[in-house]
Formats: sequence, structure tokens, C-alpha cells
Amino acid sequence: MRPLSLHYRYEIEDSDRIAIREILESTGFFYEFEIVIAEELFDERKAKGDSSGYFFVFAMDGDKAVSYSCYGPIACTRQSYDLFWIGTHADYRGKGVGKQILKETNKQVFDRGGRYLYAETSGRDQYAPTHQFYKSTGFDLEGRLRDFYDTGDDKLIYRLDLTK
Amino acid sequence: MRPLSLHYRYEIEDSDRIAIREILESTGFFYEFEIVIAEELFDERKAKGDSSGYFFVFAMDGDKAVSYSCYGPIACTRQSYDLFWIGTHADYRGKGVGKQILKETNKQVFDRGGRYLYAETSGRDQYAPTHQFYKSTGFDLEGRLRDFYDTGDDKLIYRLDLTK
Repeated sequence: MRPLSLHYRYEIEDSDRIAIREILESTGFFYEFEIVIAEELFDERKAKGDSSGYFFVFAMDGDKAVSYSCYGPIACTRQSYDLFWIGTHADYRGKGVGKQILKETNKQVFDRGGRYLYAETSGRDQYAPTHQFYKSTGFDLEGRLRDFYDTGDDKLIYRLDLTK
Repeated sequence: MRPLSLHYRYEIEDSDRIAIREILESTGFFYEFEIVIAEELFDERKAKGDSSGYFFVFAMDGDKAVSYSCYGPIACTRQSYDLFWIGTHADYRGKGVGKQILKETNKQVFDRGGRYLYAETSGRDQYAPTHQFYKSTGFDLEGRLRDFYDTGDDKLIYRLDLTK
């Protein structure tokens, strides 16, 4: 088996729309309406470029996008960014791909002037691997909004301090 | 002096765009770019109606809009709403108008199925009257994101439980 050597791409290509859906579907984590939202962010990026406020990183294994992130500056803040999406194709799980693309994303955010990266997720037990991912990559749990998504479904707000 | 008798209006009118600016400017609380955002929400409402996700309440003194709120459902949640804006013209401060329009807004949110109403604001001392307003109207401080807006400028997340 050849070792995994990824490279990164920052400009979107038309084929990424399908890659995004395949990546997110493969994880088994997302509802259909959430995947549609992810596609809409791609469409916004395609239509408006940087002014969409959505930026992408794709981790490429050869010419195949196997992981991606989508981030952007938070309006009315000076140095806060949202990590809207981060996902890795199930075929590539357990290889540290998520951590690699996050590291690359952090670099991009920092270079754009971002100092804090926020990630929001559900507090449900089903998301324990997500919580573990954020904890293990330097995020702190900055807030919890009780019953935000639904009764018994809190929103967790994680924050990564990129200056540390 | 005649007593203040307000009535409410929920459909926007073209003249509200100027009323919104006058109300927000009169408070002395908002930056120009924030007022522009408030106008953009009005424009979205005008262009797309309910599907904009922005709903308005205007408190009318005769035919003059003296206070307004803008709220809407939070995407991907079942019963959480954002209170995007609430403001009362400086000429009408200290008369309980803010509390009245909030009460009316809460009723509208509840009737649409909302159970939690979120209000976000800066933690800076300058906003002490805002914090006091939320505390005195039943909101709880649900979270604080440190340095969110800028260094030394936290975001406070208030929540009102409409089922209580």
C-alpha cells in the first residue's frame, strides 16, 4: 500500500459539488437538508468568489478530493472565523486526514487575519467523535446553548485560539 | 400630555426603511455598518417575504413607527429564534416602549412555534443598558464568547425561554 500523500487546493472546481456530497454522505453524520446547505455554500462561492464569505480547502489524493473544509470570517467581528464544514470521506478515515486538513485550514485563516476559529456542533452522544476531534485538535468548549437545535439537543460552541 | 397608546404592525411598508435608520441612529448605539445591515434585512424581507426568514414588528404611535424589532427562525433548529434587532427611537425612551414591543415580539415568535428567543450583544460596558434590558425582561445569560467581536469585546448570548 502506498503511503498517503495529500496536497491541498483552494480554488473550487465544478466537480467539487459532487465531491462535497459524496464526502458528507459517506460519513453518515448529516441529514439531507444539511448536505443541501453545504452545496449552497459551494454555489455561493461559485457565484460570488471571495465576497461570498465562504472559503474552501480541499485535500487531494492525486486528483480525488477526499476531505474538505469550508470557513469564513464572521460579520461584525475583527478576527473571528467560522469553520462551517469539515469532513473526510469514510474511505479515508483513521488516517489523520481530518487533522491535516484542519491544520491547513488554520493556516489559511491565520494568514487572512483570523485569530479565533469557531466550530459549532450538536451536543448529542452521536457526535462524540466530533467532540473528541475538536478537543484533540486544540479547541476549547467555549459555550453550550441548551436545547438549541431541539429539546435535548444542545449546541456546543468550540473555539480554537490560533495565537497559541 | 396625552398618554402613550401604541399599536402594532407586522407588514412592512416602504417608509419603514427610513424609520429603521432614524430609530437606530437616534439611539447612538450603532455603527454605520450595523445600520446598513439592519437596512439589508428590511430589503431581504421586502424582496422575499416570509421566505427571507426575517419578520418585523413595528410599534406605531399614530402613523409614526417609534420602535421596531426584527426576528426570525434559526436554520437547522426546531424551535429557536433570533432577535436580530430591537430598537426604540430616543424620543420615546423611558416609557416602557422597548418592553412592550418585546412582549409583542415574544407573542409572535411563540405563535410561530418558537420556544427560545436568542439575543446577542456586545459585553462592553457601553452596552450595560442593553444587558439590563434583557435581564429585566426574563432573558438569561446563556453564553459568553470571549474576545469574539474584538480583543476585550466579548459576545454575550442571552436566551428567553418562552415556555416559562
